[in-house]
Amino acid sequence: MTPRFLIIGGSDAGISAALRAQEINPEAEIEVLLEDDFPNYSICGLPFYLSGETPDWRSLAHRTEFAGISVRRGHRATRINRHSKTVEVEAEVKGHLSLPYDKLLIATGASPVAPRIDSWQLPGIFLLHTMKDSFAVHEYLDRAKPRRAVIVGAGYIGLEMADALTHRGIEVTVASRTKTVLATVDSEFGETVRQELEHHGIAVSTNVEVQRITQVSDHLHVSGSQGFEQDCELVLIAVGVKPNATLGIEAGLQTGEKGALLTNRKMESGAPDIYVAGDCAETWHRLLKRHTYLPLGTTAHKQGRTAGETALGLHREFAGSLGTQVVKIFNRVIARTGLRQDEAQREGFRPFTVESTLNDHKAYYPGATQLRARVTADLTTGRLLGAQLMGTWGAEVSKRIDIFAAALFHEMTVDEVSDLDLSYTPPLSSPWDPVQMASQAWSLQSQNQPTKESSCAR
Amino acid sequence: MTPRFLIIGGSDAGISAALRAQEINPEAEIEVLLEDDFPNYSICGLPFYLSGETPDWRSLAHRTEFAGISVRRGHRATRINRHSKTVEVEAEVKGHLSLPYDKLLIATGASPVAPRIDSWQLPGIFLLHTMKDSFAVHEYLDRAKPRRAVIVGAGYIGLEMADALTHRGIEVTVASRTKTVLATVDSEFGETVRQELEHHGIAVSTNVEVQRITQVSDHLHVSGSQGFEQDCELVLIAVGVKPNATLGIEAGLQTGEKGALLTNRKMESGAPDIYVAGDCAETWHRLLKRHTYLPLGTTAHKQGRTAGETALGLHREFAGSLGTQVVKIFNRVIARTGLRQDEAQREGFRPFTVESTLNDHKAYYPGATQLRARVTADLTTGRLLGAQLMGTWGAEVSKRIDIFAAALFHEMTVDEVSDLDLSYTPPLSSPWDPVQMASQAWSLQSQNQPTKESSCAR
Repeated sequence: MTPRFLIIGGSDAGISAALRAQEINPEAEIEVLLEDDFPNYSICGLPFYLSGETPDWRSLAHRTEFAGISVRRGHRATRINRHSKTVEVEAEVKGHLSLPYDKLLIATGASPVAPRIDSWQLPGIFLLHTMKDSFAVHEYLDRAKPRRAVIVGAGYIGLEMADALTHRGIEVTVASRTKTVLATVDSEFGETVRQELEHHGIAVSTNVEVQRITQVSDHLHVSGSQGFEQDCELVLIAVGVKPNATLGIEAGLQTGEKGALLTNRKMESGAPDIYVAGDCAETWHRLLKRHTYLPLGTTAHKQGRTAGETALGLHREFAGSLGTQVVKIFNRVIARTGLRQDEAQREGFRPFTVESTLNDHKAYYPGATQLRARVTADLTTGRLLGAQLMGTWGAEVSKRIDIFAAALFHEMTVDEVSDLDLSYTPPLSSPWDPVQMASQAWSLQSQNQPTKESSCAR
Repeated sequence: MTPRFLIIGGSDAGISAALRAQEINPEAEIEVLLEDDFPNYSICGLPFYLSGETPDWRSLAHRTEFAGISVRRGHRATRINRHSKTVEVEAEVKGHLSLPYDKLLIATGASPVAPRIDSWQLPGIFLLHTMKDSFAVHEYLDRAKPRRAVIVGAGYIGLEMADALTHRGIEVTVASRTKTVLATVDSEFGETVRQELEHHGIAVSTNVEVQRITQVSDHLHVSGSQGFEQDCELVLIAVGVKPNATLGIEAGLQTGEKGALLTNRKMESGAPDIYVAGDCAETWHRLLKRHTYLPLGTTAHKQGRTAGETALGLHREFAGSLGTQVVKIFNRVIARTGLRQDEAQREGFRPFTVESTLNDHKAYYPGATQLRARVTADLTTGRLLGAQLMGTWGAEVSKRIDIFAAALFHEMTVDEVSDLDLSYTPPLSSPWDPVQMASQAWSLQSQNQPTKESSCAR
C-alpha cells in the first residue's frame, strides 16, 4: 500500500516530514501545500539578505529539489474534513480544490505577534517573518533609502536586524520593553551585548513600551513610555510569534501551551491520522519532561522528521528540545541551552549559577580570546540544568554550547562534564576545555552553598 | 588526619592530582617531585615555541602558582620502598633523600621511542619531548641556522613540527614508514594532509624506513629505504613514546598494555596506597571497555584528577578515554574520536564508514567552508563507533568532534545523534548540524548494506 501523505505547510517542519517520508518509502504519495512560492526557505537567513551579506534571496532556499515529492505552491488550506479525510484548498491558479489524505500533517508555522501600538500599519513599518515580508522591506530599503530605523524588540531577530541595518549604514535605535537586551540570556550577558550594540553606534532603550507611531511629513515618529521619542524612516517590529493553530482548532484539535496545537512525542495530534509539527505545535521539553512552546527552526526540523516517521509507520519519538540557541551579533556570539537560574527556580529546582571567564584556547598561542560561561545546576543533585556562553566569533562558542546540550540531553551532573573526552590542541582549546573548567568552577563554588550535598563525596 | 600525599612527576597527571587533592583537603600535605625545573609545562606547546609563534617559553606553563602544594624541582626518584613507605630521591642540591608517604602517585610520564637508525645521536639530531629538549633545538636553530630539516615520523608531533619549521623559513622533508601521513586518521584524510604539506613546500616521503644518518662536511645526510636520500642541517625524530614504567616495575608493580603500569579505573596500582596516572599508565577505553595504552595530555589530566580523588578517599572512577584528538596543520584542522573502520573491525564490530562533505555553515552566509566527516558505526546495532572530521581552522571542527565524543560517551546510535538539540544560526551551522547530516548520511547508506537491521524501523 502506498499511503497518501498530505502536508499543510512547506517550511522547515513540512519539508522535513516530506523528505523523511520519501526516504522511508520512495513509493509513498507525498504532497506539500504551501501558501506562497517559497518552499523550505531559510527564514533565519532574512537578516543577512537585508544586510546585503547575502545578495541573492534565492540562495536562502535550504534546497530547490524535491524529488518524489509534489510541492504545490500558492495553495492555501482552508478547512480539514476529518470525516471524509479531505482538505479544502484555495489554489491561486486552479481555484477551489478538495484533496484527499490517508495521513495529514499540519505544519502551519507561526505568525508575528501584532504589537499593541497605535497605527502600526503605516507605510515604512514592517513585521518580518516571511519571504514576502522581507521582499517588502528590501524594496523599501532600496526605494525609500531610510536614514534612521527603530527596531521594536530586542530578541534574536531584533538584534540581528539591528546588526544588519547598521551594516547597511542606517542609524539604528532599539526599543525594548525588557530590562535589558536579549532576555533569553541572563542580564549579565545582556548588558555586554548592549555595550556591543552601543559600540557600533546603535542607541538602545530598554524598559520602554512603544505606544504610538505617527507619520510626520517625510518621516515616522515613534513614541513610548519613559519619554521615548525617536524620528525615523523605517520601523521593524519583532516582538515574538504565536502559533498558527486556527486550521487545527477548526478541525477540532486540542491546543495546549500558549495556544499551540497539542501533540504527543510521536507528533500525533490525538485525531486519527493527523499529525502536527513545527511552530504551530507544542514542543516536548527534554529537561522539564512536559510540553512547552519553543518555536525554533532546529526543533521544527526534528519534529517534522519525527512526524514523517510516525505517518509512515515507524516508531520513533521526538527526543525533545532543550531550547538550545545561538546568535551572532557583530563579532560576538551568544549561546544558551537548558534553563536559566530564574527558569529553573520557577520549575522547582534548587538552582545555583556560577560565571567563569576563560580563554578559548591556550593563551600562549596567538589569538586567544575570552569566553564567558554561566553554568546553572541543581544544588541538591549536582545535575546540570543549563549553560550560557558568550565569546568572539571564531572561538567555537556555538559548538561548545552543544557540548553542554549533549550533557543535558543525557542528564549529566556538572561533575560528569569533566569526564567527557574532549579534543585539545593549544590553538583550539586547553587540556580541560573551557566547558569543563566552567563546570569545575561550579562544583567548587557550590560547595560553600548551604544545601549542597557534595556530589563528589558520595 | 592529614595524609601525606607524595607524587612522583610534575607534569599533567602529577600536578592535576596535586591540585585536586588540595581542593578536596586543603590541610593535606602534598609534595610533588620533578626531575627538571619545569612543573606543569604544556609539552603540546613546544612546536609553537619552536615556530616562533610563542616567543617566550615561560608562557608555556599551564600555571606558576601551586598554593598549598610543595613542588620540589630537580628531584629524581630512584626507588620506592613499599615496606617502609618511603621514596629514595637524588636531589640536585641536597643530594640523597628518603621521603615518606601515606599515599604515593607514580606519574612518571613517557619517553620518546629511540629510533632504529644508525648514529642518531650526532649533533643536529633531536628527539623532542621535554622542555630541555626544546631548549636544545631552539638554541641550535638560533646558532646553526639550519636551512633544511628532515623530520622522521608523520604523526601529530612530526607534522606540527613540519608546520613550525616551515613557519621559520626552513625547507622541510617529512619521512615516514607509514603508508600516508597522520596514520591516526583514515588515509583519505591523510592524503589531503599530504597535499596540504606539499602545498606549503614540504617534501613528503612515505613508506620510508630511515636507516642511517651521517655527518658530511657541514651537513647531515639522511638515507633510508626506497632510495630515500636527503641532505639537511637538522633532523627531528618523532616516532612515538613509551611509558616510563621502570620505577614502578622495580617496586613490584604489574605492567599491562605496551608495558604501561597496570591500573584499575580508580587509578590504583594494585599495591597498597600506590596510584598511577598519565603516560606511564594504562588507559581505560570507554568504548572497548578494557585497558589500552593511549598517552594523551587530556587523559593525563583526567587520570591525575581521579588519582588525587582516590588518594584522598573519594569514590570516583576515571570515565575512560575515547582517543579524542585534534591537530591543526597550517590552516587545516583534523580531528578524531573513537574507533576507525580498521580498529573497529579488529575489535569484532561490524563497522561501516561513510564520508560526507558538508558546509560548516549555511552557504548563503559569507565564508562557508567545506567540512569532511567520516562516521563509523556498527551495522548490526547502529551504534556509533567513531568519527573523523577535517575542515578549515575557524570552522568549529574541534568542538564538533566533541559532539561525537559526547555521543560516544553515552553509547548513542547514529540515528540518535540527530536527536541532539544543537545550536543553529546561519553564520555558524545549519538547522541540522553537519555532525547530524553526516550521521543521517550514514543511516541512509547503511540501509543498502547486507547485514544492517534498520535501527530506525525497529
